[in-house]
Amino acid sequence: MNLEEELTKANILIEALPYIQRFHGNIIVVKYGGSAMKDESLKNHVMEDVALLKLVGFKPIVVHGGGKEISRWVKKVGIEPVFYNGLRVTDAETLEIAEMVLGRVNEELVQKAQSLGVNAVGISGVDGNLLTVRKQMPDQKDIGFVGEVTKVNTKVLKDLVENDFIPVVFPIGADEKGQRYNINGDHAAAMIAQAVGAQKLVYLTDTPGVLMDPEDPDSMISELYTNDAEQLIADGVISGGMIPKIRNCIDSIHAGVRRVHVLDGRLPHSVLLEIFTDRGSGTAIIGSEEKRYYQKV
Amino acid sequence: MNLEEELTKANILIEALPYIQRFHGNIIVVKYGGSAMKDESLKNHVMEDVALLKLVGFKPIVVHGGGKEISRWVKKVGIEPVFYNGLRVTDAETLEIAEMVLGRVNEELVQKAQSLGVNAVGISGVDGNLLTVRKQMPDQKDIGFVGEVTKVNTKVLKDLVENDFIPVVFPIGADEKGQRYNINGDHAAAMIAQAVGAQKLVYLTDTPGVLMDPEDPDSMISELYTNDAEQLIADGVISGGMIPKIRNCIDSIHAGVRRVHVLDGRLPHSVLLEIFTDRGSGTAIIGSEEKRYYQKV
Amino acid sequence: MNLEEELTKANILIEALPYIQRFHGNIIVVKYGGSAMKDESLKNHVMEDVALLKLVGFKPIVVHGGGKEISRWVKKVGIEPVFYNGLRVTDAETLEIAEMVLGRVNEELVQKAQSLGVNAVGISGVDGNLLTVRKQMPDQKDIGFVGEVTKVNTKVLKDLVENDFIPVVFPIGADEKGQRYNINGDHAAAMIAQAVGAQKLVYLTDTPGVLMDPEDPDSMISELYTNDAEQLIADGVISGGMIPKIRNCIDSIHAGVRRVHVLDGRLPHSVLLEIFTDRGSGTAIIGSEEKRYYQKV
Amino acid sequence: MNLEEELTKANILIEALPYIQRFHGNIIVVKYGGSAMKDESLKNHVMEDVALLKLVGFKPIVVHGGGKEISRWVKKVGIEPVFYNGLRVTDAETLEIAEMVLGRVNEELVQKAQSLGVNAVGISGVDGNLLTVRKQMPDQKDIGFVGEVTKVNTKVLKDLVENDFIPVVFPIGADEKGQRYNINGDHAAAMIAQAVGAQKLVYLTDTPGVLMDPEDPDSMISELYTNDAEQLIADGVISGGMIPKIRNCIDSIHAGVRRVHVLDGRLPHSVLLEIFTDRGSGTAIIGSEEKRYYQKV
Amino acid sequence: MNLEEELTKANILIEALPYIQRFHGNIIVVKYGGSAMKDESLKNHVMEDVALLKLVGFKPIVVHGGGKEISRWVKKVGIEPVFYNGLRVTDAETLEIAEMVLGRVNEELVQKAQSLGVNAVGISGVDGNLLTVRKQMPDQKDIGFVGEVTKVNTKVLKDLVENDFIPVVFPIGADEKGQRYNINGDHAAAMIAQAVGAQKLVYLTDTPGVLMDPEDPDSMISELYTNDAEQLIADGVISGGMIPKIRNCIDSIHAGVRRVHVLDGRLPHSVLLEIFTDRGSGTAIIGSEEKRYYQKV
Amino acid sequence: MNLEEELTKANILIEALPYIQRFHGNIIVVKYGGSAMKDESLKNHVMEDVALLKLVGFKPIVVHGGGKEISRWVKKVGIEPVFYNGLRVTDAETLEIAEMVLGRVNEELVQKAQSLGVNAVGISGVDGNLLTVRKQMPDQKDIGFVGEVTKVNTKVLKDLVENDFIPVVFPIGADEKGQRYNINGDHAAAMIAQAVGAQKLVYLTDTPGVLMDPEDPDSMISELYTNDAEQLIADGVISGGMIPKIRNCIDSIHAGVRRVHVLDGRLPHSVLLEIFTDRGSGTAIIGSEEKRYYQKV
Repeated sequence: MNLEEELTKANILIEALPYIQRFHGNIIVVKYGGSAMKDESLKNHVMEDVALLKLVGFKPIVVHGGGKEISRWVKKVGIEPVFYNGLRVTDAETLEIAEMVLGRVNEELVQKAQSLGVNAVGISGVDGNLLTVRKQMPDQKDIGFVGEVTKVNTKVLKDLVENDFIPVVFPIGADEKGQRYNINGDHAAAMIAQAVGAQKLVYLTDTPGVLMDPEDPDSMISELYTNDAEQLIADGVISGGMIPKIRNCIDSIHAGVRRVHVLDGRLPHSVLLEIFTDRGSGTAIIGSEEKRYYQKV
Repeated sequence: MNLEEELTKANILIEALPYIQRFHGNIIVVKYGGSAMKDESLKNHVMEDVALLKLVGFKPIVVHGGGKEISRWVKKVGIEPVFYNGLRVTDAETLEIAEMVLGRVNEELVQKAQSLGVNAVGISGVDGNLLTVRKQMPDQKDIGFVGEVTKVNTKVLKDLVENDFIPVVFPIGADEKGQRYNINGDHAAAMIAQAVGAQKLVYLTDTPGVLMDPEDPDSMISELYTNDAEQLIADGVISGGMIPKIRNCIDSIHAGVRRVHVLDGRLPHSVLLEIFTDRGSGTAIIGSEEKRYYQKV
Repeated sequence: MNLEEELTKANILIEALPYIQRFHGNIIVVKYGGSAMKDESLKNHVMEDVALLKLVGFKPIVVHGGGKEISRWVKKVGIEPVFYNGLRVTDAETLEIAEMVLGRVNEELVQKAQSLGVNAVGISGVDGNLLTVRKQMPDQKDIGFVGEVTKVNTKVLKDLVENDFIPVVFPIGADEKGQRYNINGDHAAAMIAQAVGAQKLVYLTDTPGVLMDPEDPDSMISELYTNDAEQLIADGVISGGMIPKIRNCIDSIHAGVRRVHVLDGRLPHSVLLEIFTDRGSGTAIIGSEEKRYYQKV
Repeated sequence: MNLEEELTKANILIEALPYIQRFHGNIIVVKYGGSAMKDESLKNHVMEDVALLKLVGFKPIVVHGGGKEISRWVKKVGIEPVFYNGLRVTDAETLEIAEMVLGRVNEELVQKAQSLGVNAVGISGVDGNLLTVRKQMPDQKDIGFVGEVTKVNTKVLKDLVENDFIPVVFPIGADEKGQRYNINGDHAAAMIAQAVGAQKLVYLTDTPGVLMDPEDPDSMISELYTNDAEQLIADGVISGGMIPKIRNCIDSIHAGVRRVHVLDGRLPHSVLLEIFTDRGSGTAIIGSEEKRYYQKV
Repeated sequence: MNLEEELTKANILIEALPYIQRFHGNIIVVKYGGSAMKDESLKNHVMEDVALLKLVGFKPIVVHGGGKEISRWVKKVGIEPVFYNGLRVTDAETLEIAEMVLGRVNEELVQKAQSLGVNAVGISGVDGNLLTVRKQMPDQKDIGFVGEVTKVNTKVLKDLVENDFIPVVFPIGADEKGQRYNINGDHAAAMIAQAVGAQKLVYLTDTPGVLMDPEDPDSMISELYTNDAEQLIADGVISGGMIPKIRNCIDSIHAGVRRVHVLDGRLPHSVLLEIFTDRGSGTAIIGSEEKRYYQKV
Repeated sequence: MNLEEELTKANILIEALPYIQRFHGNIIVVKYGGSAMKDESLKNHVMEDVALLKLVGFKPIVVHGGGKEISRWVKKVGIEPVFYNGLRVTDAETLEIAEMVLGRVNEELVQKAQSLGVNAVGISGVDGNLLTVRKQMPDQKDIGFVGEVTKVNTKVLKDLVENDFIPVVFPIGADEKGQRYNINGDHAAAMIAQAVGAQKLVYLTDTPGVLMDPEDPDSMISELYTNDAEQLIADGVISGGMIPKIRNCIDSIHAGVRRVHVLDGRLPHSVLLEIFTDRGSGTAIIGSEEKRYYQKV
């Protein structure tokens, strides 16, 4: 390596300095799912990013789903996966399988973190009563054991973070009577980010970001203010399965999360690049009141 | 309720007083498995016992296996369970299923604790690098992904206990290269008890205790000193699958665990009765050096 | 002991579980006096109850008087005890004797606790400036060195409780100029319970509880709401020496104590039975605002 | 006040500076008894000295006896005080009175400290199991409930000191069975000083210090090395009731107390003058090994 | 030394007791400058006073200027010192010299404290971003690198005090862009006293205190209430260079400092005498609202 | 920026991950001097490196000299700088100037750190009694106020590091009598690194590293084991002013510092590149006992 390359290296590290400083000690919730879970190399990249965040002083929390893996197992035992409005219709047997698959994916992510030398602990919404839920009835329809979060008890997360662990959370929760439910991962991540007072919530998705035209990857919006997002929903630009995701983003901003990022999980190290370089990536959801004095954070 | 009954009640509580006092702040590891896992009511009783231990000042750690449930799922996907010397022969697919089943059983136990109002967190040996293992080769035989524990990193357990959680552990661990392995539950419990400096290790089994004659339940030994136990193995009285279990007991005593108890998990509240009443139950394994001045602890 | 008896035992311990849980870490002030102080066996029972409360996680504070013992000594040195409205008329010599007797009773109770293996420290209202008093003048009458509490400095109690001691308090306090005074024990206990934010205040008395008819033990009121208590005073049902006691109860509820219990100190383990069993005993004084949604706590 | 007087003042304070510095944070045990307990003004001076020690950063512990007051009360109830070798022969009734009197003297000293604005807590050897004793049998003679200390549990003292209280201790302790005993105050103070690792132990006595000739106050020894003290006992110069006192001093030095001082309690502020001025007062008992490089500490 | 002298000594120490008590744990800022910096013996006396304050439980902070020493060095390199309204006109070279001289004076004071056995750390307003300034423009006149404090970041002071150090501060600060400035010492001391919540601010000056007639040392005002001070400024009694000093005093009182003292730094131990004796010295600036119930503090 | 560049960025950050991990929480002492102090841009680079080390979890301590600046000022006041064996001959006036210059350089470095948003505090060896020295007499020659370190009191460093400050130290210390001395910066840095238990000690020099032939920059030794270093000194390969520097390195390794690095301070970011990239730079001094199992740390 020659001198010039070395300087480039040094400068990239130095470029990261103000970001490390700005976010030092802040909580960042990373929702990890979709394609990024299928490709073993991407899986590694995401956990590397999270590990680096941890090592330089952030307090990352990972929330993940089970993605295609649940459907694979459901089919294996002879059940046909059914979805309603993007939510998995969940009978007792499907719930059992979902719990099993999510638990194993969780263990795998925890182990990747440990292999990278950072301490992680995998938990569900049941541990320490993290997520209390009630039955979710979209359009009054019964879709089985699908729950929406009504209360977040952050003690277990705070204790783990305080003790230098990365919590890795899978979205199963119980209601007041102890019945367990499957929870949509995006929703769980948003509720957790709000409850722990996260500075940032990052969604790794299978799109480059929020698109004006779902068919056109180049139509991505870099900065999306919450009131503009509301307008886009009202205008039907944001539609279908994108609506609940954006709703989670908007709610999180209103509840005090400073920035929500919708990033392309298919690109390696998209989290790292968003956090540590001057040029962000994907879409940043921002509170309308920041419009005037916007700066990258 | 009349006066006499009330006094009986009070006296039972008062009888527990010296035991609460003696063990206050002590760690007790409860290995939970076998039949006690099948009967829903027994499952509740065990977790009630553990919850009470926690509430009166003990620091319980639960270690559990998956029992019959793993075999049920293995068969479900078309594999015939094979055992060698009491250890499950574990190919990649079996390991995957074991992880899934154990994860779900774990979640269920955690939830029972939470329903009883005590905080619990479920972890595997992978979380916080709790259990490092190496491939186990009984009689130089390859039985697949079965590991024996070579190192216990107690940080995650200590942090959870310190933060008032009951750790509930399932026995999956990884080797130095990150390959995961199934671990025999009795072995994992013993290694954990030794590493955390437990005062007591309790095995819930499907027998009344250690029997002189496996066919005769009345042949139970109440107190078994470690050197007598060695003699019984040498004499062939203890034989077959009982040998590794007793070996775990002896090793734990030598490593500083004060008492190991082999209790009948099929009886309700056997843990509670052992700990809080003057009359113990099952077999207590005791260091030979205590023979002279033995007292119930 | 047969199996059935063992289960009974276990079930009684399990029955205590929700109460241990509910009150864990809560302060409970036990005013100990009257007949319970004369009978050596009752004395032991009370301290056993307090010790058990401590061991399972409560934070008990004991307040006691000297009862008959002060009168015995006063007479011994040739003084005739005089009372006015239930308060001991206290000249200098009587005060000296009261201090001596209370100090010794205090030492005795502390030692009983220590014999039971729990740490206790005996203090008066003078230690750490716990109780500041002013001369009490019932009906403008001078009854000597009898004081009423004007300020409670809880530092010494909090430090002792924090360091795992049971504070055992006898009711002597000093005024701003350093003159010491005898204090009515019920009053001292109430003031302390209010100042430390106790969850419960328990009076051990020589009656079964609050009676509609003082002559009829069966006329006991199980739950007495504060506004009903006020009415009973206004109606003359509660009268004489009972009035100041009930006044202490009502004041304590208004100041935030959740429950005040008037129990029969002549029955063994009445405190234990009240706290740890579903059926309470004696009279519970309860805030009127709880009437609608009353539950046993 | 003119300039010169002001400078004198300032210089006296400045003279105290190195002593404050040297002893900052050190424990000093002051045994208070004899004539200093009879004169109200002396009593105030001693507690003023102790209060000042506390305020400038020392950690004082006061141990006191009951002196003449116990005999006065014993006589009052018709018992003739009897002593054997300087120890009070103590039957059950005498013990009761001793406890009562000591408790009240204790309360009085605590209150003096509080009046001076420093926090104090009075305890006996029973509180927190401070002093465990066994029956003392001088020359195999039974002198009743007189105990010698066999174990010191310093927890209560350390907790009180840590929480900024001055512990004021009266010498009653219990044996393993819970029987209480009277303890010689000098002995109790020495055992406490040794157990808490005191830097200094100060005895306030009715003599100017250790005298070569008990009849001649001018024969006081300023510095007495432990081996010289042994010699003086062997030679019979130190004799009678002085022997146990000097024995306590020697034992304390051997157990690590840096200096023991025998001061004249009849002189006002003798403690203060010893500690804060270049010229000490009374007799300093010093370890023989310090002979070569002796310096005032 | 005879008995009477010893008692005098003891009484002076005892006289200090209530003051030690009253101010224990309070922060006191001592601005040290003027003649007291020239005389080596006075320098020692001031640091002895500060050391004693520290040892008896105060938390002193020293702020100092460089006085005549800066002018001496400025002349040495051929610059003629210029002042405007009592502020040093400061070009780049003068600033460099001021920093050098202040740094060295600082080191010297720190060392004096260390020689007296108390820990001190010297800092400027740059360390830990203690003092943020902006260019000061008296009467819109540019006088170079002279700054006025706009923000005080007390972290470094609090950490040092917490860790038992005496912070010794010299008044150089930087603006938002990192340009360093010279700061008037009286102003810096006042801003620091206000920001850390000091109980007292002491100015050591070259006058006996605040004088009604600057020419007449006997015209000193002992207690000066803030509204009276305002009136004296309005009436022209306080004038010239005295105005900003008194303004600092008044501002500090308004910002919560309890007392500001203007003392004669030329008298030895003036700080000590003010703090520890019943008769204060110099002028005490007091909030008008204390007029009615004034007492020496 | 295109995708490839972005990945390069991410990979460089990820490459730093294991180094961040390995050294997290470790102390690293950086001796800063020579040419790196003259060039304003290099000065910035060094402090940027130190700031980044701090932000990612290291605990850096900076030690610096005054370099050419002292000579410049000495000449300015008419003194001719004299050196003996690389040590500055230091009369009283030279010492005064050295203190002034070092103090100001110190302030400047502290401010650079603060501008980068990390907290720093500048101290000398006098603060908190950090460095106790005695007069250094090379070859029995008197070279004035030049001291060698005899004791390091690490309290002030540990407290500052604990409170999240970067200590920036300049090498002035005092002897037992309070006389201050100039100290060689390399020596001071080595003594500090040893006393605080540093993991690494980094010397920024005006050479590429340790050279076999001082005239040939390409003769640099990458890894120099301590016994080889001793041999090179014995063989005369390392000679002259290089000997004391290498001696400091060897001593530090023997005292437990894991690695000493001699880096080229004239290259930008040489500290960063050494720490965070796989290819180190300059010379690493390594304990001989590591020869067999050497790995880059």
